[in-house]
Amino acid sequence: MNKAAVYHRADRSMAYAASKDQMQIRLKTAKNDVLKVRLIHGDPYDWSEGKWNYTEESMFYRGSDELHDYWEMNLTPPFHRLRYGFLLSDKKKTVFYGEKSFHPAPPEDIGEYFCLPYMNEADIFKSPEWVHNTVWYQIFPERFANGDASLNPPGTIAWASEDPKRDSFFGGDLQGVIDHLDYLQDLGITGIYFTPVFEASTNHKYDTIDYFEIDQHFGDKDKLKELIQECKKRNIRVMLDAVFNHSGFFFFPFQDVLEKGESSRYKDWFHIWDFPVQTKPEPNYDTFAFTYMMPKLNTEHPEVKNYLLEAARYWAREFEIDGWRLDVANEVDQAFWREFRQEVKNINPDLYILGEVWHDSIPWLQGDQFDAVMNYPFTNNALQLIAKRDISIKTFIENMTKVKFMYPSPVNKAAFNLVGSHDTPRILTECDHELERVKQVFTLLLTYYGTPCIYYGDEVGLTGGGDPGCRKCMEWDEEKQNQELLSFTKKLIQLRKDEPLLANEGDLSFYDLSEQTLILKRENHDSAVIILINLSDKKDTVKIPYSLNNRKTIDLMTEEAHKWKKGKIKLRPQEIKLIKVY
Amino acid sequence: MNKAAVYHRADRSMAYAASKDQMQIRLKTAKNDVLKVRLIHGDPYDWSEGKWNYTEESMFYRGSDELHDYWEMNLTPPFHRLRYGFLLSDKKKTVFYGEKSFHPAPPEDIGEYFCLPYMNEADIFKSPEWVHNTVWYQIFPERFANGDASLNPPGTIAWASEDPKRDSFFGGDLQGVIDHLDYLQDLGITGIYFTPVFEASTNHKYDTIDYFEIDQHFGDKDKLKELIQECKKRNIRVMLDAVFNHSGFFFFPFQDVLEKGESSRYKDWFHIWDFPVQTKPEPNYDTFAFTYMMPKLNTEHPEVKNYLLEAARYWAREFEIDGWRLDVANEVDQAFWREFRQEVKNINPDLYILGEVWHDSIPWLQGDQFDAVMNYPFTNNALQLIAKRDISIKTFIENMTKVKFMYPSPVNKAAFNLVGSHDTPRILTECDHELERVKQVFTLLLTYYGTPCIYYGDEVGLTGGGDPGCRKCMEWDEEKQNQELLSFTKKLIQLRKDEPLLANEGDLSFYDLSEQTLILKRENHDSAVIILINLSDKKDTVKIPYSLNNRKTIDLMTEEAHKWKKGKIKLRPQEIKLIKVY
Repeated sequence: MNKAAVYHRADRSMAYAASKDQMQIRLKTAKNDVLKVRLIHGDPYDWSEGKWNYTEESMFYRGSDELHDYWEMNLTPPFHRLRYGFLLSDKKKTVFYGEKSFHPAPPEDIGEYFCLPYMNEADIFKSPEWVHNTVWYQIFPERFANGDASLNPPGTIAWASEDPKRDSFFGGDLQGVIDHLDYLQDLGITGIYFTPVFEASTNHKYDTIDYFEIDQHFGDKDKLKELIQECKKRNIRVMLDAVFNHSGFFFFPFQDVLEKGESSRYKDWFHIWDFPVQTKPEPNYDTFAFTYMMPKLNTEHPEVKNYLLEAARYWAREFEIDGWRLDVANEVDQAFWREFRQEVKNINPDLYILGEVWHDSIPWLQGDQFDAVMNYPFTNNALQLIAKRDISIKTFIENMTKVKFMYPSPVNKAAFNLVGSHDTPRILTECDHELERVKQVFTLLLTYYGTPCIYYGDEVGLTGGGDPGCRKCMEWDEEKQNQELLSFTKKLIQLRKDEPLLANEGDLSFYDLSEQTLILKRENHDSAVIILINLSDKKDTVKIPYSLNNRKTIDLMTEEAHKWKKGKIKLRPQEIKLIKVY
Repeated sequence: MNKAAVYHRADRSMAYAASKDQMQIRLKTAKNDVLKVRLIHGDPYDWSEGKWNYTEESMFYRGSDELHDYWEMNLTPPFHRLRYGFLLSDKKKTVFYGEKSFHPAPPEDIGEYFCLPYMNEADIFKSPEWVHNTVWYQIFPERFANGDASLNPPGTIAWASEDPKRDSFFGGDLQGVIDHLDYLQDLGITGIYFTPVFEASTNHKYDTIDYFEIDQHFGDKDKLKELIQECKKRNIRVMLDAVFNHSGFFFFPFQDVLEKGESSRYKDWFHIWDFPVQTKPEPNYDTFAFTYMMPKLNTEHPEVKNYLLEAARYWAREFEIDGWRLDVANEVDQAFWREFRQEVKNINPDLYILGEVWHDSIPWLQGDQFDAVMNYPFTNNALQLIAKRDISIKTFIENMTKVKFMYPSPVNKAAFNLVGSHDTPRILTECDHELERVKQVFTLLLTYYGTPCIYYGDEVGLTGGGDPGCRKCMEWDEEKQNQELLSFTKKLIQLRKDEPLLANEGDLSFYDLSEQTLILKRENHDSAVIILINLSDKKDTVKIPYSLNNRKTIDLMTEEAHKWKKGKIKLRPQEIKLIKVY
């Protein structure tokens, strides 16, 4: 047995309370090494005659990544506390694995076992229920629709008359969004994530000047209120984007520091190394990346904290927004985010907190900070598999399994899944303009656990490379919209709404049965949806090892009964099938 | 290469800011598998011509446990942020290991590297400086000294006239401690940890009745103030014990609930399953263990939080205590401890917060909750090696190395090391009454990193098994005190005070050179102390592979120059040597 590869810690993604009553325990072993794992567990204080009373249960094998197998088990400890260890068996022998070391058999000393001392509700990760059933739509306001020409900034370019440059303005605004809410309702989305709308100088508004004002080119507070009211009428949630890591160059406290130097009352609002402050040739203060235009905020300073937290509270309280997306969230101190969570959840316990973190995000997803992060591992793997065709289905499954076990299950349920944004090339462009691939990407996005988000215009086939290419004006000319893709997207959204298994009621697993067809299963205790995506230009036949005796099946795409031929499913080249098994 | 055993996560004990400027990165590999590790690292935003600029440096091998090798490296990233990966070499090949997977060579995509996004000071673990140089003394007040017979509880037994039973009272009190502060000062200790002193019904006082009152049999608030003043005069710190997980049965809110049932205004202060409340045959409320006398407090309830946090603040504010030891700290919600930390550190940033956690304590040691936990892994391994002689030196070194790498270095520096307490048999009893072994245990305790604690009376040779045996009355008759042990203990304490390397200025490493002599090295950049403890009844000769050219050496026990004979050190049976190398 490869003992050195066996890993568990009573912490993070390996052992946690998934709910008030349920604990989830996971174990990692080397791939194809251990044949069976039994969990030994009991109440830490349940002793009789000097011996600890424990029970044994088999753990479930839940998948593998490139190098490891993952085992999992759910428990409901009656007194909300647990000591436990593992019995691992390979062909040759069985060994005990506990907190301190391996032993030939379960030791008597309870100190050798792992401990989950008490399931306190306050420490359990909880995200808003509504998020699990939301389909998001990301809007970059400057490019969605120009609804009020009177707000156009100087030099505004006629809508969609040219490709955007870094500093183009096309006059998109909040009225434009209001004007097209019927379109969004018809599309079926149930949440809008707006990139920043606060006063700023650029077109992307990630350089906040005033955290308490709507950018004048987008509208005003009344307009935002109207927009949010109109959204509410349509059951569409609204999430705004907060840039708390750094301010814009023209943020009044930073301007004050530039002007007054060391005597500015705001000098400690930033991380200034020495005075006088200089911006060139290199800034002598902390910045976002090396951008002197974006001075890093000192979020540990009480006044800065007060200012930013009041901004967070203000829009939650006065405008009843449903979510905050937090820009460059990983570079802000976690103590700040803990306070942030308390403050906004006090106003609205159902407010969704979404952090931008591109790398391993476990420190922020313990229940005390964010409800979710942008799921870039999903983005990358979906694109590599389907758009770019540069990883195999096997690798995709391994990578997504690895990601799945990096986070607790409840965290995975709230992950913000995206396949494109204002920071990445357009999905149709990523797919080499192959429409079928876009459909396949969208199918994966909308049948995966988590909360999916569509980047504005992707559904009508907008194209473009990285920023600024991916920030083209929304196409409102129906003749120029890709109606086939739009209809397909609507259908997928509708399917996800109609079928809770596809949203977050179904566990997800993979079938590694074909080199050309990606096969997912979403299931609960009594039904399942099998999602098949033939990525190849050739037809395929797969045989699902799933008990179908006396089961009804329906092809959700055609709404016809699906006919199984000896358990085999035939797929045309590039075909997508969603088969519901009752 | 055993790739499945390679482990790193940009989290917890593997990657962290050790100070405002210093990052520490660690890697775990299978034992004796990888020959060399190089760290590839750079600023996440330092790009030129589309390529990320990184540097490479060799990591240090820092020790092994039974199954793994540990590698470590300190860095000072100029802009307080880092992306990094590892190049691992064995005899056959070199591979890259990053956040997503292994690669044959360092990949270009920065997303493949681990990330420490920003070293925010607020998130850095910091414990009070003074703790690193403190030698603690644990007092169980009922058994230390009876200084005021007028406070004796009914049925008080004459001091030390018999062995204690579970419910014995001997009349120990705060005046008794005051009376013997000169003794403690002479012993050399610099901190006292008192088990609970608040109003309670038992002799151990872990069943708090009133968190704002001193137990009447111990004294009153004025007496505590006097005691603390007297300690301050002698530069002795005072730590009190808070039992916040559960209350005593006679805690007035619990009595109110017992009396009024569902109509009690305190009904939500506990976790009561249903009404009427019953204590027998089984309690229908959450308890500590299964003890109906100790109802678990609902620390998530705002009123309970207010009550307990005000107690925490009260004694810190009004009595200027230096530390809180937190009983059964692992079973209270972590959200509570975060608030607790903020509240007490607001009053005194230097207040030491010590949690009682017997198992893996990483969740509580991230800088947002505790400064330290009771280091029971140290206790267990020290006792198994020296007192009970049932593990080898090799196993001891492996176990302590494993523990070391379970926690960040700054956490290890503040660990509360003990070799006995009111919960465990007396050290002399554990050592089968072998005095030399006790000396050896104390030597390890007082030369190890962390902050050592001596349980009252261990220094004069008190004996006894588990509770109540280990709670005998302190021996004040000098003729009955073990003077040899007392002198030896004083000497060790003095050595630790005189020699900062032995406290917390020296890194600790082990030499696995002898099967009978435990060898530790505490060193900084220019000097070292080598601690040798011959555990055997036979003499031993060891050869330390340490460059001694032109170095002065002194035997700290004899204060004579140590004579190296061709680099060899000879030890008599059971001998302890501390050799300082200048």
